[in-house]
Amino acid sequence: MAVDVAALVTRAREGDHRSVARLISLVENASPQLREVMAALTPHTGQAQFIGLTGSPGVGKSTTTGALLGDRVRMQDHATDRDVYIRSMGTRGHLGGLSWAAPQALRVLDAAGCEVVLVETVGVGQAEVEIASLADSTVVMLAPGMGDGIQAAKAGILEVADLYVVNKADREGADATIRDLRAMLTLGDKKAKEDWTPPIIKTIAAKGEGIDEVAAALDKHYAWLTSTGALEGRRRKRIADEIENLVVTNLREQVGDLRGGELLPDLAEQVMAGTTDPYAAADKIIATLERN
Amino acid sequence: MAVDVAALVTRAREGDHRSVARLISLVENASPQLREVMAALTPHTGQAQFIGLTGSPGVGKSTTTGALLGDRVRMQDHATDRDVYIRSMGTRGHLGGLSWAAPQALRVLDAAGCEVVLVETVGVGQAEVEIASLADSTVVMLAPGMGDGIQAAKAGILEVADLYVVNKADREGADATIRDLRAMLTLGDKKAKEDWTPPIIKTIAAKGEGIDEVAAALDKHYAWLTSTGALEGRRRKRIADEIENLVVTNLREQVGDLRGGELLPDLAEQVMAGTTDPYAAADKIIATLERN
Repeated sequence: MAVDVAALVTRAREGDHRSVARLISLVENASPQLREVMAALTPHTGQAQFIGLTGSPGVGKSTTTGALLGDRVRMQDHATDRDVYIRSMGTRGHLGGLSWAAPQALRVLDAAGCEVVLVETVGVGQAEVEIASLADSTVVMLAPGMGDGIQAAKAGILEVADLYVVNKADREGADATIRDLRAMLTLGDKKAKEDWTPPIIKTIAAKGEGIDEVAAALDKHYAWLTSTGALEGRRRKRIADEIENLVVTNLREQVGDLRGGELLPDLAEQVMAGTTDPYAAADKIIATLERN
Repeated sequence: MAVDVAALVTRAREGDHRSVARLISLVENASPQLREVMAALTPHTGQAQFIGLTGSPGVGKSTTTGALLGDRVRMQDHATDRDVYIRSMGTRGHLGGLSWAAPQALRVLDAAGCEVVLVETVGVGQAEVEIASLADSTVVMLAPGMGDGIQAAKAGILEVADLYVVNKADREGADATIRDLRAMLTLGDKKAKEDWTPPIIKTIAAKGEGIDEVAAALDKHYAWLTSTGALEGRRRKRIADEIENLVVTNLREQVGDLRGGELLPDLAEQVMAGTTDPYAAADKIIATLERN
């Protein structure tokens, strides 16, 4: 059944959580109205600050997220329940990464008028790199005694982090973790981060310690992004990536559809018979796609 | 400098190893004459029997390959040096898999009149699945005491093997390895292998023991493939896969070229300004690609 997308967007922008939830569901379920939703949202986007938070399981991501959100809400005079919206998204077969619908879901939240959107993801596989490609500021969390130093180096975290948080700073080994991290950062390529030196902040999220510093560092990074024009550059690149992904996905689907048709089996037959070769066959298929 | 492809193919088919080597190099280096090479080869293909051999490092793949080739050569009356051609291929950034040029290199060997083409690859990452997609018969090698049972289950080997070889069968733990493998095979989906039950053969490749049995099992599997029509089905699917990959690679390159152009940045700008959305932008790019 068709949904009144325009009305849903209007209500979402008025702060109605249920409308926000329905829009995200439409996106997640790849509704036939997905394009309509995106077209309705886009004029209202571009205002939210996107923060990515990643790290190994057990470093304290959720505690830190909770503390950061609490911090933000506390600092607002008119804080009410509706100021915080929390949503969990599955990865649906997209292993070790974000949900394929993550960029679209972030666009819903942006259009709904959220000022800060914080995406928390387990740092496994490609997730760090993916979150960094979506976020304005990426926070990489470590904790003592988890071998994170080596993990960080392996996962290419050096290139994605704008801010490091060493949580559980009251535990044994916290200073060693910070020392290892500093050593790695010295070895890394500093130019990659456009003159921004990622700070390392100690926290004990469970006690709320260091959370103000994290919030301040995020504000500082955002101000740096804005003043240098890096924010616009990142967002432009992010949108170009998203468009490119949509194009490739669409083309791939068109090619996939060929399996059910006659052309690909016919051409495979001709290659088997030696009357054509795979490159010539591929050219014929491309010509067909381009005629449609 | 342009190569006389037709002459090269003729000499390769006469058994000239250097011409075979040059053709494979043209393919590996993605020569501008790649298409010409493929067009010249295809009419002569479809005769070779392709065998894939995979397994963890240290299971004895090369020893077994050597023993199998020796076995084949020994059984031919007119065996000479030119009956065996060995070539090593890098993976060139295609981590944990076969060289991207593997299907084309196999086509060179097929067209050159090789009766049996044996591809040996380290079973890491996607290699098993890739080798199985190229081979008529896939041999998965294990050895005692290497934790291969668990590795096999993880890597989806159950679905790709036509034949199991437990090498170093005189070592402690060989029977346990076979027992584990049998247990796993019982759990696996038998229908996936079209009624062929993969045999488990014990070998001591270093002493040449069991190699005749492997050769006999490969012949039996090939006869089964031929008599049931499965061979034709596999080859048809293999060629369709190859064509599809060429199409997707070509389209992806066209999209990549957009980065250097004006359309993608312009559209990204419009999405940023909220005057269009990413889906509409992707549609415009697809329309442009299809006009070319």
